[in-house]
Amino acid sequence: MRIDGTWHRSVRVDEADGWSVRILDQTRLPWEVTWLRLADEDQVAHAIRSMQTRGAPLIGATAAYGVALAMRRDPAVLETVCAMLAETRPTAINLRWAIGRMLAALRNIPPGQRAAAAYAEAAAIADDDAATCEAIGRNGLPLIEEIAARKPGQRVNLLTHCNAGWLATVDWGTALAPIYMAHDAGIPVHVWVDETRPRNQGAALTAFELGAHGVPHTVVADNAGGHLMQHGEVDLVIVGTDRVTRTGDVANKIGTYLKALAARDNGVPFWVALPHSTLDMRVRDGVREIPIEERGAAEVTDLTGRTADGRIETIRVVAAGSPAANPAFDVTPARLVTGLITERGRIPATEAAIAAMYPEKA
Amino acid sequence: MRIDGTWHRSVRVDEADGWSVRILDQTRLPWEVTWLRLADEDQVAHAIRSMQTRGAPLIGATAAYGVALAMRRDPAVLETVCAMLAETRPTAINLRWAIGRMLAALRNIPPGQRAAAAYAEAAAIADDDAATCEAIGRNGLPLIEEIAARKPGQRVNLLTHCNAGWLATVDWGTALAPIYMAHDAGIPVHVWVDETRPRNQGAALTAFELGAHGVPHTVVADNAGGHLMQHGEVDLVIVGTDRVTRTGDVANKIGTYLKALAARDNGVPFWVALPHSTLDMRVRDGVREIPIEERGAAEVTDLTGRTADGRIETIRVVAAGSPAANPAFDVTPARLVTGLITERGRIPATEAAIAAMYPEKA
Repeated sequence: MRIDGTWHRSVRVDEADGWSVRILDQTRLPWEVTWLRLADEDQVAHAIRSMQTRGAPLIGATAAYGVALAMRRDPAVLETVCAMLAETRPTAINLRWAIGRMLAALRNIPPGQRAAAAYAEAAAIADDDAATCEAIGRNGLPLIEEIAARKPGQRVNLLTHCNAGWLATVDWGTALAPIYMAHDAGIPVHVWVDETRPRNQGAALTAFELGAHGVPHTVVADNAGGHLMQHGEVDLVIVGTDRVTRTGDVANKIGTYLKALAARDNGVPFWVALPHSTLDMRVRDGVREIPIEERGAAEVTDLTGRTADGRIETIRVVAAGSPAANPAFDVTPARLVTGLITERGRIPATEAAIAAMYPEKA
Repeated sequence: MRIDGTWHRSVRVDEADGWSVRILDQTRLPWEVTWLRLADEDQVAHAIRSMQTRGAPLIGATAAYGVALAMRRDPAVLETVCAMLAETRPTAINLRWAIGRMLAALRNIPPGQRAAAAYAEAAAIADDDAATCEAIGRNGLPLIEEIAARKPGQRVNLLTHCNAGWLATVDWGTALAPIYMAHDAGIPVHVWVDETRPRNQGAALTAFELGAHGVPHTVVADNAGGHLMQHGEVDLVIVGTDRVTRTGDVANKIGTYLKALAARDNGVPFWVALPHSTLDMRVRDGVREIPIEERGAAEVTDLTGRTADGRIETIRVVAAGSPAANPAFDVTPARLVTGLITERGRIPATEAAIAAMYPEKA
């Protein structure tokens, strides 16, 4: 990822001291670009709990570095620190997977060598995530190249929902990885960014990271996508996902399903980008079986942003006394998904194709 | 419409003095319920221009009362005042229709009798609008009664988008009229209120007026409707409209089309409420022919609301430097519309049915 022309990772070891951990404070985005310095496992735990860092892959890698910081201080605390970090976000599958990988790598290492081994393993986890996302980008890029070839000299219009970019991963992102690669390859891409109510991850995070990288984009209300597609303004939809079932149903941020319906109604390809770890082969019928998190009503009724004179304020936008509901995700049935972009390639969103590409999971 | 148990109209002659005009200041909603007193035509013009009053039918009736206020002061200014008031909102068809009706009624009346005649004509315009909306309510009510009969003891869940209630008309509203009548008849209705980004007419206005009348409701992000329909949480969608073509295509607030797609995908009836004046028989293909107003980007990037300590603040929610686009309406093709609710009855959204119900327009 590029910010002001310099390539960064969302989590990295500080270049100056060689041991502390740097993350971008996402609770300050898009208002401020602040690189936090984390010096021990408690600061890492706080950063995860307070959502200063977020996104399943990024949380996993950051927690792994938290183990490394602890090992530097005291190699004897491995088990207790791992248990503590694993509980910082109760529902993040990727977090526990990363902690498990650290435990497995370090448990049988002599205490005196654990710190170095922990840094190496955390770096490997981060490298793996970056490599996975880069592969997703390479596998998605031809979709954009094909459209560009069909309309030479014209911009390729993509639409995305929520944030599935480098702010949710160590680098590249998932849905945005092909877009960054197309932009870097000189294809004139333009991204319609759904603001993604109620948490506005599109308006705040996706717009920020596309802007930082220099990718042309326009923020729109979530309501606008159908109209844009009706008028030929969207060539391709790419979204990320929180969970894909063995049959290809896609759980993602609330509102994704509406965009998939509009894409189908207007003949616009609708692609979903994911790493293998997002496949949940235990689930068949996404709409019936995937529990949808109901989040707090305040995310709907209240918004935080910056006033013209620079103050950060939170305001209520809903009539006093009116309640609000906040389902956080929805499920897009596989029948509406043109295909899946994974680190191994592109496949239709069908049980047979998923099983054939991931035989070890089937 | 009921506020705190008392029935009001959105525009009315002051009960105390018998001549000044009272309107609800919609620029203060939902934060404050302020009844403005308008004492002359300039105050009326300001109220319309500044959107203190809004909604095509309501603007027309308010402008008519503006003519009456002017006639009270000086019956000789009829033509100039009408010309001035007709220009307060350039695109409001209903405004010019109401002014035309006032001119026709007053031009041949002796100056000494014009004030009384103007009040009478303005009252007739307001009465006609209220009667039209009440008839829409009566004609839509059976749709709700039928659902209530199918699920005795359970709440009837409706979903609406934007504001098509009494805040946009003299009384009752269009899409909300059947809902108010069902509620008043003791049917346990509950309304999912789309917040309706970017101007939030749902969160601010629809939630306010439903709450004031005592109708149970829940505000949701515009993204949530598809998920609610997938899980059987919506029995019926009713929306208003800005224009309906001779073939039944429906222009309405941006995002309406997405809800119509979700309704079709989940077998939920999707009805559109309108007075006859909303039919535009000159237009056949709504998607191709109806120009869509592109409004200012600030409506997407900035929101106004109330802080916890009571200040009204405007904040930016989009990343600095990111542009935004703001198409204000979209078109729902007739094929997705279950039917139209008008003051004459309910019909399918087809050219034949519209022509049969409105032969004088066909």
